[in-house]
Amino acid sequence: MRVLGVDPGLTRCGLGVVDAAPGRRAVLVAVGVARSEPGVDAALRLVQIGDEVDRWLDLHTPDAVAVERVFAQHNVRTVMGTAQVSGVVMVGAARRGIPVTLHTPSEVKAAVTGNGRAPKAQVQRMVARVLDLDAPPTPADAADALALAVCHLWRPSGTTAPGAPAGATGGTPAQRAWARAEASARRAGR
Amino acid sequence: MRVLGVDPGLTRCGLGVVDAAPGRRAVLVAVGVARSEPGVDAALRLVQIGDEVDRWLDLHTPDAVAVERVFAQHNVRTVMGTAQVSGVVMVGAARRGIPVTLHTPSEVKAAVTGNGRAPKAQVQRMVARVLDLDAPPTPADAADALALAVCHLWRPSGTTAPGAPAGATGGTPAQRAWARAEASARRAGR
Repeated sequence: MRVLGVDPGLTRCGLGVVDAAPGRRAVLVAVGVARSEPGVDAALRLVQIGDEVDRWLDLHTPDAVAVERVFAQHNVRTVMGTAQVSGVVMVGAARRGIPVTLHTPSEVKAAVTGNGRAPKAQVQRMVARVLDLDAPPTPADAADALALAVCHLWRPSGTTAPGAPAGATGGTPAQRAWARAEASARRAGR
Repeated sequence: MRVLGVDPGLTRCGLGVVDAAPGRRAVLVAVGVARSEPGVDAALRLVQIGDEVDRWLDLHTPDAVAVERVFAQHNVRTVMGTAQVSGVVMVGAARRGIPVTLHTPSEVKAAVTGNGRAPKAQVQRMVARVLDLDAPPTPADAADALALAVCHLWRPSGTTAPGAPAGATGGTPAQRAWARAEASARRAGR
């Protein structure tokens, strides 16, 4: 199972690809950002971001795309551009037959740290630990994209998820092994 | 000069194509809506709308696309889907090399009726009169898309606009003729 996490943004759009298989650690495949230049025409900025995301989709061929759900309440000045980027990313994935799931920021925090109100720094440290990185990737948008991918892999009820939530007793032996390994990584990250 | 006006929406996305040349009436080319089904996956809904808009772009080959600017303050329940649609439309046009301009609802009302706070029904009656239609097109999203196209053709300062605003005395003789004709149509519509 390979997931592309996307933290949508018009100036910097975080991108992170993570692989996972039942009973094995999640592995970092690629992380980075798609950028567009402020001051350029808005439609051309969306094309710049969309082209780069499409390139990642074709290069890494993820099985699923996890995009942060944008809320109207957040940062009114930039939220429309962020929502436009998320629409462009969703269409790029769906046109390739790749399923798209939206996750809220608190879902991501809860999945990665066990606490839906965890501070950003804690989420990023936990992502680095889970993926066996020396430090959280920068910029923050890139680390946030990886957190989305990890959240998607760890989500409790997805039909394509490789594992059950920490502490679950159902599933196959491999799924239980996965759950134990991930629960252990979560505890270590607190 | 041919303009595709787009009133973005996830359930109904209004589309209207208008032709205009200096000193001539604006002419309706096509009007309709792109639809997607509520209850379908959000990414697939965006693809349904995006594919239909792309089809209009390829069929009608407009010189410009005018899209309603979406604000975070409006109808929080649907605004994110509306913004996502606008992003998808903008990218479809920009990838075809067609310039995209965003117009606010009050810019559209002011351009079409002379009053930035005109009621919707007045804007739609004026659009019907300008385009020599027996009645405003339905649904309202389709009429709103035509209003966006007319607004774009009539905007005061665009470098590609065929005419100057009503009452302007600058420009070429053809531009002044255009301005007089449009001013007369505006007065008749009040």
